[in-house]
Parts: sequence; C-alpha cells; structure tokens
Amino acid sequence: MSVVPGVPPARYAYLGPEGTFTETALRSVPAAAKAELRPCATITIALDAVRDGEVDGAVVPIENSVEGSVAVTLDELAVGEPLVITREMTVPVRLTLLGRPGSDLFAVRRVVTHPHAAAQCRRWLAKHLPEAEVVQAPSTAQAAQMVANKEDEYDAAIAAPLAAEKYRLSILAHEIGDNGDAVTRFVLASRPAPVPPPTGADKTSLVAFIGDDHPGALLEVLEEFSVRGVNLTRIESRPTGTALGRYCFSIDAEGHVTEKRVGEALMGLRRVCADVRFLGSYPRVDKLPPTMRRGTSDDDFRDAEVWLARLRAGEGA
Amino acid sequence: MSVVPGVPPARYAYLGPEGTFTETALRSVPAAAKAELRPCATITIALDAVRDGEVDGAVVPIENSVEGSVAVTLDELAVGEPLVITREMTVPVRLTLLGRPGSDLFAVRRVVTHPHAAAQCRRWLAKHLPEAEVVQAPSTAQAAQMVANKEDEYDAAIAAPLAAEKYRLSILAHEIGDNGDAVTRFVLASRPAPVPPPTGADKTSLVAFIGDDHPGALLEVLEEFSVRGVNLTRIESRPTGTALGRYCFSIDAEGHVTEKRVGEALMGLRRVCADVRFLGSYPRVDKLPPTMRRGTSDDDFRDAEVWLARLRAGEGA
Amino acid sequence: MSVVPGVPPARYAYLGPEGTFTETALRSVPAAAKAELRPCATITIALDAVRDGEVDGAVVPIENSVEGSVAVTLDELAVGEPLVITREMTVPVRLTLLGRPGSDLFAVRRVVTHPHAAAQCRRWLAKHLPEAEVVQAPSTAQAAQMVANKEDEYDAAIAAPLAAEKYRLSILAHEIGDNGDAVTRFVLASRPAPVPPPTGADKTSLVAFIGDDHPGALLEVLEEFSVRGVNLTRIESRPTGTALGRYCFSIDAEGHVTEKRVGEALMGLRRVCADVRFLGSYPRVDKLPPTMRRGTSDDDFRDAEVWLARLRAGEGA
Amino acid sequence: MSVVPGVPPARYAYLGPEGTFTETALRSVPAAAKAELRPCATITIALDAVRDGEVDGAVVPIENSVEGSVAVTLDELAVGEPLVITREMTVPVRLTLLGRPGSDLFAVRRVVTHPHAAAQCRRWLAKHLPEAEVVQAPSTAQAAQMVANKEDEYDAAIAAPLAAEKYRLSILAHEIGDNGDAVTRFVLASRPAPVPPPTGADKTSLVAFIGDDHPGALLEVLEEFSVRGVNLTRIESRPTGTALGRYCFSIDAEGHVTEKRVGEALMGLRRVCADVRFLGSYPRVDKLPPTMRRGTSDDDFRDAEVWLARLRAGEGA
Repeated sequence: MSVVPGVPPARYAYLGPEGTFTETALRSVPAAAKAELRPCATITIALDAVRDGEVDGAVVPIENSVEGSVAVTLDELAVGEPLVITREMTVPVRLTLLGRPGSDLFAVRRVVTHPHAAAQCRRWLAKHLPEAEVVQAPSTAQAAQMVANKEDEYDAAIAAPLAAEKYRLSILAHEIGDNGDAVTRFVLASRPAPVPPPTGADKTSLVAFIGDDHPGALLEVLEEFSVRGVNLTRIESRPTGTALGRYCFSIDAEGHVTEKRVGEALMGLRRVCADVRFLGSYPRVDKLPPTMRRGTSDDDFRDAEVWLARLRAGEGA
Repeated sequence: MSVVPGVPPARYAYLGPEGTFTETALRSVPAAAKAELRPCATITIALDAVRDGEVDGAVVPIENSVEGSVAVTLDELAVGEPLVITREMTVPVRLTLLGRPGSDLFAVRRVVTHPHAAAQCRRWLAKHLPEAEVVQAPSTAQAAQMVANKEDEYDAAIAAPLAAEKYRLSILAHEIGDNGDAVTRFVLASRPAPVPPPTGADKTSLVAFIGDDHPGALLEVLEEFSVRGVNLTRIESRPTGTALGRYCFSIDAEGHVTEKRVGEALMGLRRVCADVRFLGSYPRVDKLPPTMRRGTSDDDFRDAEVWLARLRAGEGA
Repeated sequence: MSVVPGVPPARYAYLGPEGTFTETALRSVPAAAKAELRPCATITIALDAVRDGEVDGAVVPIENSVEGSVAVTLDELAVGEPLVITREMTVPVRLTLLGRPGSDLFAVRRVVTHPHAAAQCRRWLAKHLPEAEVVQAPSTAQAAQMVANKEDEYDAAIAAPLAAEKYRLSILAHEIGDNGDAVTRFVLASRPAPVPPPTGADKTSLVAFIGDDHPGALLEVLEEFSVRGVNLTRIESRPTGTALGRYCFSIDAEGHVTEKRVGEALMGLRRVCADVRFLGSYPRVDKLPPTMRRGTSDDDFRDAEVWLARLRAGEGA
Repeated sequence: MSVVPGVPPARYAYLGPEGTFTETALRSVPAAAKAELRPCATITIALDAVRDGEVDGAVVPIENSVEGSVAVTLDELAVGEPLVITREMTVPVRLTLLGRPGSDLFAVRRVVTHPHAAAQCRRWLAKHLPEAEVVQAPSTAQAAQMVANKEDEYDAAIAAPLAAEKYRLSILAHEIGDNGDAVTRFVLASRPAPVPPPTGADKTSLVAFIGDDHPGALLEVLEEFSVRGVNLTRIESRPTGTALGRYCFSIDAEGHVTEKRVGEALMGLRRVCADVRFLGSYPRVDKLPPTMRRGTSDDDFRDAEVWLARLRAGEGA
C-alpha cells in the first residue's frame, strides 16, 4: 500500500469525527501516512465502506480497558460479508476537561461527554466537580464540538487533548481519568486477504456459533482450545440477533492460524459448532509471546504426525 | 412497598429521559404503580441514587437481544457499594420512524437515533431510505427530541412509539426493526436485602474475578458450574479497569442461590477465584425452568449429605 | 497364513496346557486351522516366542468379564520389544465340576481350581458344597490334571468341559458359574505389521506413560480422547515397575487408528505424554459400532481441513 | 485390640500359607503382636472370616509395584457385605532363589514360582539361568514347598527369604528382582467402624459404579475429584461381573473422608453414579502429604460456607 507513481494512494475509513482517538489509532499505521483518510459517522458505515470496496481498510474501536467491548464492532464483524482483522492498535486514554477559552474550572455546571469517558473520570468528577451535571454525547469529539457551539447549554467536555486544538477549546484539567493506564484497542479491518505472517506474538479472533443451547456447549468450545494448549485473552457470549437465549461466542485466542495448535483448535471448533467465522490472525500490539504448554509447539505436532504415519504403516510403536 | 397512609411512597430511579423503553420496563413493576419515578441522565446516576439511599431501586438496561450487554450497567454493578438485582424485565423493541407532523417518508434525508437502534433497522433503512444519512444520538428518546427541536438538522428519528406522543411527532413507519422478536432486558437493582424466594425458574447473576491470568483459569470457573449441573445463560470476560489483560467474568446462571447445586457452585467459585461478587437471584422473566441434570436436585444433595454423615460415623457404605 | 504347497504352515503359541479356554480361543482363528499350535507354560513364554520369531503369533488371555484384566498380559505388552494385537476373541466361561469317573458330588471335600474360576462359582459352591475346601491351582486345566493324578489330595476340579475329555474325568455338575454370560477375552499378538483394515466396529489398544505425576495428569489423557469424541471401553492406571506411585494408563478405545478422530487423539497423547505405546487396532469381537458424536466422522475432519486451508490462504471464512 | 486381662486376644486372618509376604505385612501391625493369626487358603476365605465375625480383621495383598492390582481383593471388597480398609502396609519384594541344601545354582533346570515373581526376575533369569524352564505355582511359598517336597520335579523356587527357613532350603542367589525398589501393598480390612482420625497424609478408597455406559461417564467421575482439587493415586475400570462392557471404577484418592474437599467429592460421586461404595480412609504408609491446590483446605471451605450463608440472608456480597 505504499505510494508508487501512477498507483492511487491507499484509502482508509475510520470512526469519526476527526480528532477522536480512532484517528490517532489510524495514524499509527505506517501505510496510513500518505493515504486518504475518511471519517465515518458510525462504525457500520466505516466497515461497509470496506465491504463495498470504497476503501482498503477501516479502523474502528473494539475494546476499552475500562469499559469492555464495543458491541457494534463485534456484531458487525460477526455477520454480513466477511471481513478480517489485519492489525490491532492501542491508544492510551488520556482524558482532559475542555472549556471555552477564558472559562473557569470552578464555574463548570454542565459537563458533556461519552458515557465511557464519564465512567473513567468518575472519581475525579466526584472530587473536583461534585455539583456538576454530566450529560451524554455520542462521542468525546462531538462533546467538544457541543461545548464550542452551544455556549448556553454546556460548560465543559471530557475529551482527548487533540480535540482542544480542533474545536479551539482550552484544557481546564489534564489527565483526569481515574486509571492512569487505561487504553482503547482498535482494529484495522479489511476484505479477506492472505494472512499476515506469524511474528511469534500473535492473536487470532473468531466467532463460534452454537447450534443448540445444551448445557455444556460453552465448555465444549473451550475444551477445543485448552486441549491444544491455546490460551484465550477474551471471550463473550453474545445473542445472535434472533432472540435472547441463542448465543455465539466472540473469542480472541493466543497464536496464529498457521500454527498447528491453533489450526487444529479451529478445525475442532468447525466440527462441533454450527458455524465458525474466522476474523483474522495478526500481531499483538503488546508483543507478548503466547504461554506455550509442553507438547504444543509446531515441532511437537510434526513429530506426532510422523509417529502416527509409522503406526499406520505397521512400522511399530 | 405498597402505599399505606402515613408511609411515604416507594421511589424508583431509571435511565431517562421519560418516554424511553426503560420507563416502560419500570412501569411493569407492580410496586412502581403508585411510586415516585425519577428519570436520571445516566445509568451511573440512577444506580448511585440507590446506593445513596435516595431511592428504593433503579431500573437500568443490561442486555439487548440484538446488541448484547450494556457495559456501563455490568461495570457499575461489579464495583463500588454492593447492589443486587431483584427483578428482570424485558421490553420488546418495537421501533418506529418518527417525523414532524405533516412530513413525508420520501423526503427523509437525515435520520437520527441511537447506534443500537440503527443497527436493528439496517435492512429496513437500506431498502426504504437507501440515500438517507444516519446520525447517532445518545438515546432514542433524545433522537425524537432532536427531530422535534431542530427542524433544519434532522428529518426523522428511530424511536419507541411512546416517544411520538411525548414529542408530538408522527409515525412515518411502524415496526421497522429487522428482527421481529428483538427485546431489551432491564434489571431492578436495590441495596442488599433478603433474596426473593425461589420460583422454580430463577436466574443468579455474579461477577468472578480471576487472581492470576493463567491458562485454563476460565475453564476452572466454568467447571465449578458444570460439575454441579448448573447451566449458564450469559458469560463475558471483562477487563477489570486496571489494564487490558486482567479479567473478570460476568455471568448469569440458571437457578437460585438457595438451591443446593447453585450454593455449592458459588462456594466453589469463592474458593478458586480472587473474588466473587453475588449480584442476586431473581425470577426469570421468560419463566423457563432450569435444565436439571440427573443427581442435582436439592433432594439428591440432601441424600448425599445423609450418606456422607453415615460414612463418617462408621455406619457403613 | 494360508497353507500353500512349499510354504511352511503358520505357527501359533498359546497359554497352555492343552485343553484350556485359551486353546478354544486360538481354534476360533481361521488361520489356526492348519497351523502348528504350541502350548506354553506362561504368558511370558508365549509372547517371547513371538518376539523371537519362533511363532507367527500368540494367543493369551487379557480380560475376564468377572475378574478383570490379566496383569501379566498387559505388562508384557507394555514393555520390551513391541508387539501388536491383531485380533480379539471371547470364549464363554462355561465352568463345570469335574471328578474322577465314578465319583460322587456329595463326597467332594477338596475342590481345586484357578482363583478366578473359584470366584465365579462362589454362590454355587456355597449352596451345593458348603463344607468343601477350595484350593488354588495355576490354571483350570492344571486343576483337572491334579484331580486325575492325585487321587488322595483332590476330589474335584472346576474347569472347562474340554478338560473332562483330555484328563478322562466325569462332569459332576454343568454350568456352575454364578453369571451365565461371563466370558474371557483373549488377544492374538504378533510382531508389528500393517494394521488390519477398519471394519466399522474396531478397537484400539495403547499404553500412555505419564511423565510427572501432577494432579490432573489422568484428566489430561482422557480429554485427548473426549474432545475428539472417542469413547473408552477400558482404562487402568498401572505402576510402571519402578516404584508405587509412578503410573501409566492401559487403555482400550473405540475406533481404528486409520480413522481421523482416533489418529488425532493418538497424536495428542503422543504430545502430552512421556511416551505412548500403540498396541494395535483390530475388529471388535462383539461387532458393536462406535458411539459417534456429531462432528467426528472422517468426512467432518476432511471438511474442516479444507476450510482451514482456505482460511490460511486468505480465501475468507 | 490390646490384650487386657479377661479380654480375649484379637484375631486376624491373612492370605497364607505361613511364610509369605502377607504374614510379614500382618506382623507390622502393632495390634497383631499378641493376636491370634490365622492363615487362609484364599483371599476370599480371609475376607469372609471378617464378614462372618470369626476374626477382627484380615490382611490381604491389593497391589504390587511391578504387577499391578490384585483383582480378587478389589472385587471381593467391591461386593458383598461391606468391609472397610483401616490400614495399608507395604513389604519390599526381596526375592531370592531357593534350592535344596547342597544344590548348585549351575545345575538348576526347572524353576517354580508365582507368575508375578517370575516377571520381576525376568532379566536375572535371562542372564544367569537362560536355559531354565520356569513353572507357575499359586504362591511363592507354595513354590518353596514344592521344591522341598518334589525333588525329582523342581530344582529351585523364587520366593521370600523367610521361606528358606520354613521349608529348610538354601539361598542360591540373593535379591534377584530386576527392580530393587519393588514393593507389595497390603490392606487390613475390617467390618465398618468409626473411621480412624486423619493424620494429614491419608488415602481414601472407593468403588464408583456407572449407571449407563455413556461416552464421558469416566470423565464425569474424574471431574468430581478434580474440581475439588482431590488427586487420585490409582484408578481402574473393572467389569461389574454381569457382562464385558459394563463398568465400575476402583479408585484410591488422596485425603480423608472427614476433610471437606474429600467429603464434597464423595457426595458428588454419590449424586452422579449409580452407586458408590466407600472402602475407608486410612493413613498412607509412605506418609506423603496430599498435593493441596489453592482454595481446597478445610478453612477455605468453611470461609465459603459462612460467605454463602451471608448471601442467602441478604447481608451483601
């Protein structure tokens, strides 16, 4: 996706508006440096732009270290035309309180922000602005815009520092998040393409659909991983959109689809589940290598294959 | 909580504004009939009103059959002063397209709604309003209000029928949700109190915190349930708010805390987990009785207790 | 092993002496019809004759429906030069009471037999010969011989009807076993050779050696089978001959080594165990087809392999 | 069972004849010092003497570090009038080659012994007496007796050193067993009586009968132990005496029936199995304390019970 004379530049969609953490995430992708970036009003619109071939990829939030998964992203990836994740990025959630230039922290009565950001600043707000009312906005960037545009309604917004510049606001307080090390995780989704090569510290995402909701169905799914020594980093049962009570499991596992233990676990799921959707193998942003259990390396699998072939040929145990 | 002369009426908080599905859910609680109802701007504010003793309970959304769990509710219940769930309710998600009186469906260019509602109407929108732009609002009720107030910005809102009346809008299209049977699940949270008696079709909610994130930690948690024949209806791994990678599990299980198989499973979790937070046992709104495995009824447990006592006393096998 | 002019006939060893149930078992093997049959004093001698190339195979008892496994056979197969089981046979245990011609049931004071046979006739003996002393012999055939040769020591033997003829004894009582349907299982062991083709109702025998005796080691072994839907028909932990407390597991599983679910389970064992010794796949004598769990047929495995190859090639989920 | 004036001495049965390892085992029981000891011809006779009240207890072999379990003992304990194990003992298997006084090792042509002893001396025999024939006897003591009495038939016996004295034989070779540290395990069985108090290093024996032989039945049994952190030291599937294919499991587990984790595991078995027979809790002869998993001590169980009681009373999480 590098820029070559005569070759059109890459295009990326992302959850807008400009100035959000999602744009920050996208800018960490090397190929995005000279690419055309398109902010989208919703996650759905951003992913549909990939499906329709209008862009080469889309960056959307998928998980927040404080607030958990982004349901829309999980569900959009789980159904419809297949998309795969080719990269993950994290952006530290450094939240600031933004007001109009010249405004005073002590005069703040109405704060506007996204509910997740509000939750992350709960202790700070209780201590410094115990009387302030907190109002919800669809995103932190929109909250900043609302403070800039509606002087009579909102006094301050909780948003990223980047938004101060964009909406010409002042920072009334820095780093007001209760957990210093909170981060948001984003993914770059694209149309199915050859899987990026394993790096030794990879993650594989998938959705496993359960046929009938018998007791032990979840345990069955988990054993396909555990028996091959594949550790999970995230799991969520999710309704499948038909009625409460019928489920699928959205899963992130350690390892890469080209590794034998991961491949065998995936095949196991394919056999016991009603359906499995592979959402990609990609490098872990934290570069943590997987926890490897004895007997689960590719060499161990190869040795066992040779041994089985000998047994079947009658060449002894 | 009935109204007796000289006794102040019960008070309930709920996620506002008025006219949302949450109010509909609260109105299905018998004790709410003559109670004082207080709409709150956020889930956090509603639950804090319970914690502070300002109200007797709060109704908040916890899960949507299309969109999954409501992260803020799960997280607010998982930490802070303990609250318990004493009742669950579901409200069918009947979505309508609302416009200003006299407006025309074919002239709709900008639709405003909550992202979850937008996702539920995707197919309808693609078919009937393929050109329309969809804009996010913090709630469906606020979307309706925005259509009523900002004539130049939005043409229509996707919201509950109830909102038409409240904001003096017309229904441009009925039941536009893609899944006829979609519902939202709400819970009534209150301060710890004696558990409501078992009804034979109950659910128990809890949060299990994992001490160290070793491979197989999740399997260990699930086996505490499965070995006692307790089926799960929902599970989610969730970051604990310190850093991505340290998890707890938010779980709904079949059965009631006073049942022996459920009690033993809870004690098992208490022993293997770093911490367990009990979030209540309450009647299932769908009245489905649990799937009972052979050997897991209260009678089976009692028989085994008598047998063990005899063994220990040396009275033979 | 058919008899062709100029080709020496097949030779089989078996646990002697002549006239035991083991000879009956061997005679049910078609290839034994024109073969040279060699009775051996011990199971060890019979199996060593195969290892040394003196015979083509050996028939030895491995399990008795009343008494359980024959430890010597299991242990001889588990160590030393590899042997494989190519056939199993069962012989109904029809036990009779044999005395010298002209002797009287009511005069029997001392009965001699193998301890297993004695156990199988316990209730009959208690009822019909409550005063008789029961003495152990190394085999039922030897017991018959002892009655024939030592008139002053033993009055009667419990043995197979076949022994009456061989040692010129009379049958004092027919079918005196307490369980009408008791059987002994025998196996034909030979040097490693191409595995007999699957019949649709096969059994696979093996020994799994545990490296370190950590808690859960056995569970780990069993999960390698259960996760691939392979049911076990026999399992025994056995000390490995070094000290009490270090174990291996002697296992019979449903299915054939050439079947994919069995092959994958064997490879799984190979990876997690210190060592695995394959003891052969062979037709079940009871012709019972395996219990097949959904998703574990060879077709299911092949479908999953094709799917994984597509994923790895980036051809979508 | 101490000897008090006017109180009759204790009586013990054991598997005879005199001079076997079983007598050695019995003599290690303090209460046997001044007791009446009765050798029995078979394990069945010894155990029946306990059931009938003729003796206070019986010592029988149950497991051999080389050869595995003694099927007759396991099966006799599994059925009939209940007996419990109150003590285990081990006796090192020091095997010697015994011949008539004045005989010569190099002239030995026929060796007689029990098959288990023969197996333990295989390598020694192959090296020192490669030409000798090995003949089976019902016990090592009887083999010694046969050498003493039948000069023309047998040249030497493999037996315990104790037998040399009893049958006036000479030791031709010392410690000829292939595994220096082989031992035989014996148990003292008595009628049901108050369980001996826990010592901190105990073992619990039991038999679990499976109702229907569904796939996963064994896994179900093992999970009842593993979920409570109870490690097994021995397991054997055994036919139940009706037909090959219906099984029970004979199990030794770490810990004592009065410990909470063991008690709960036993109750779990009682609930999922067709039947469970408790065979006693008794001190481990090797004094090895159990492997304790986090969260499974009696204190952990008590803490969980208090916690659950608080939950049920509505006193908060």
